[in-house]
Amino acid sequence: MPSTFPEDSVGLVTPQIAEFEQPLELDCGKTLPAYQIIYETYGQLNAAGSNAVLICHALSGHHHAAGYHSPEDKKPGWWDACIGPGKAIDTNKFFVVSLNNLGGCHGSTGPASIDPETGKQYGATFPIVTVKDWVRSQVRLADRLDIKQWAAVVGGSMGGMQAMQWSIMYPKRVRHCVAIAAAPKLSAQNIAFNEVARQAIMKDPDFHGGDFAAHGVIPKRGLMLARMVGHITYLSDDSMGQKFGRELRSDCLTYDFNNIEFQVESYLRYQGEQFSTRFDGNTYLLMTKALDYFDPAADFNDDLSAAMAEASASFFIVSFTTDWRFSPARSREIVDALISADKRVTYLEVDAPQGHDAFLIPIPRYLQAFSGFMQRIEV
Amino acid sequence: MPSTFPEDSVGLVTPQIAEFEQPLELDCGKTLPAYQIIYETYGQLNAAGSNAVLICHALSGHHHAAGYHSPEDKKPGWWDACIGPGKAIDTNKFFVVSLNNLGGCHGSTGPASIDPETGKQYGATFPIVTVKDWVRSQVRLADRLDIKQWAAVVGGSMGGMQAMQWSIMYPKRVRHCVAIAAAPKLSAQNIAFNEVARQAIMKDPDFHGGDFAAHGVIPKRGLMLARMVGHITYLSDDSMGQKFGRELRSDCLTYDFNNIEFQVESYLRYQGEQFSTRFDGNTYLLMTKALDYFDPAADFNDDLSAAMAEASASFFIVSFTTDWRFSPARSREIVDALISADKRVTYLEVDAPQGHDAFLIPIPRYLQAFSGFMQRIEV
Repeated sequence: MPSTFPEDSVGLVTPQIAEFEQPLELDCGKTLPAYQIIYETYGQLNAAGSNAVLICHALSGHHHAAGYHSPEDKKPGWWDACIGPGKAIDTNKFFVVSLNNLGGCHGSTGPASIDPETGKQYGATFPIVTVKDWVRSQVRLADRLDIKQWAAVVGGSMGGMQAMQWSIMYPKRVRHCVAIAAAPKLSAQNIAFNEVARQAIMKDPDFHGGDFAAHGVIPKRGLMLARMVGHITYLSDDSMGQKFGRELRSDCLTYDFNNIEFQVESYLRYQGEQFSTRFDGNTYLLMTKALDYFDPAADFNDDLSAAMAEASASFFIVSFTTDWRFSPARSREIVDALISADKRVTYLEVDAPQGHDAFLIPIPRYLQAFSGFMQRIEV
Repeated sequence: MPSTFPEDSVGLVTPQIAEFEQPLELDCGKTLPAYQIIYETYGQLNAAGSNAVLICHALSGHHHAAGYHSPEDKKPGWWDACIGPGKAIDTNKFFVVSLNNLGGCHGSTGPASIDPETGKQYGATFPIVTVKDWVRSQVRLADRLDIKQWAAVVGGSMGGMQAMQWSIMYPKRVRHCVAIAAAPKLSAQNIAFNEVARQAIMKDPDFHGGDFAAHGVIPKRGLMLARMVGHITYLSDDSMGQKFGRELRSDCLTYDFNNIEFQVESYLRYQGEQFSTRFDGNTYLLMTKALDYFDPAADFNDDLSAAMAEASASFFIVSFTTDWRFSPARSREIVDALISADKRVTYLEVDAPQGHDAFLIPIPRYLQAFSGFMQRIEV
């Protein structure tokens, strides 16, 4: 019953799977003999093949970015605020492709997939992949869909890093690059938070060195802690204060470690527990490592501007004032490098209280500017 | 061989223990039948008893604030930079008392102490204590030492909160109050980080509901994670960047989850592992809860100024620009409340890159101003 969906929704969508039998050489030196990518598309590819937009997801994201999988779904895809008819990424104009990254746990080949060589889950044996590997794996998807050049490659956070990497590695295949709430590389503090999350998972006795599936368990405690730490970094101090303040769960203090005292504790535990049952521990390790390793300037003597030299895309870089995971200063590093490489770049710094999560939220100025940029794209 | 100690050191010190047999009623409603406090003193109490300074410690601190326990000690006490002959807290002038908080794990009665009623460690049965309880327990120590009024009560971070609480609860017993890198109460984000630490400890299978001692184990994994998270909040993003940047441990990436890739990971794991073998899990829970509960304004309709109304101390409030655990804005809340309560207050905001940990570091402007404030105290 598509009539139950909002008018500006892409409506009912069905994920598709692309199988790739050609081996994929990875940065780590290992080769993946074959892999599959799960993806969704919204809108129609035009005859010229010139209106395709690639959506790259963030750390815990997946291919289901917009619309609904069933009329019973309570929530649409994770970026429904930005993708749909008349929205910033207008599906009346664009053919949108959204995929789950290689190494993910939502349908693309990853640690929880069956290794054809052993007949068992890869688990700990799944190789570490990098942002570059992702781009290489996505190029094959583009070829499969007969998309020779993306009108735009778009992503927030880790997705923005993939968009940047696309524009560096395949300059002729990217006309526009949109990197939102991203950074040109992780800071020591960013790596430190990732390391806490990894240690939480790896030190969980149910992790079993990554082979938890063989033991019929999941590292639930570790994933819960990893998500709790992550979640703190997604919100600003102010937004947490506004959302929860020091509100108590009951009328008075209970002086008991086992009771939840403050609303913020309750919220974090809930977020952590939900996440711990639906996300794969090995995928979490892999995604955080890919983030740690991302450093496109490293191949160019730490000169980000040199890394960008060959890019032919027009760039749209967006940051949010209270984002302390990837602050506006990190986006400005990208902008400065692009200016110094003489690239076309538009920079938007949005005054928003929501912290890093702002990139997922329909903030009027953000949506308006994002729409404006996308509308100017000729297809 | 005291000659091996620096000239501005208090030299060799020996902790002392004060036993209190009178029951202590706690905010949680329980009563501690008896307790002991371990403490050190530096300098000499004058005949008038007017030159005593109380040092209150932070989350993982203890009584050993200055000097050495043996000539072999590689490091002096945790605040040796500020306590000693000629230093900010000048032991030629002041008689300094530094104690381990009730509930601690360095010699004062705490969860790892033997419960006289059962003959076993308190463990999970040790009651939750509050900052007010600490002040009440410290009043008895002051009485025991015949100190009717402190020339100053001084502390950084959680120690600053105790100093504030002293000035509110015992206005006639505190002439000067020094609260460094403190806050009038925790923010939702502060509580959130504490909750992650607590969950890490409580979810460790070796925690056994707090009775790990009975099982002959310690919640090492949980304590390690708690310390790693804590440590990130003690440093600024910039100082982490300057200290570690993205320096690799080996010449190239290893693409292995079990290898430590970046220096910052190595540092954090080391800090976490060191801490996990020397700190009591139940004490960590207790200290973080005391922090969460601290909210002196709560008894005064959330009016901090009203909470301060009866204080007769002169206040010295210090913050550090890159401290994001208790930022300068949090110190200014204290200052504003004091001004509006018509109290004498001096506020110092130190430009320092080190984050929250700056309060432990000999930063020239900080030491100079701190010394200046302490020198003006009449004894």
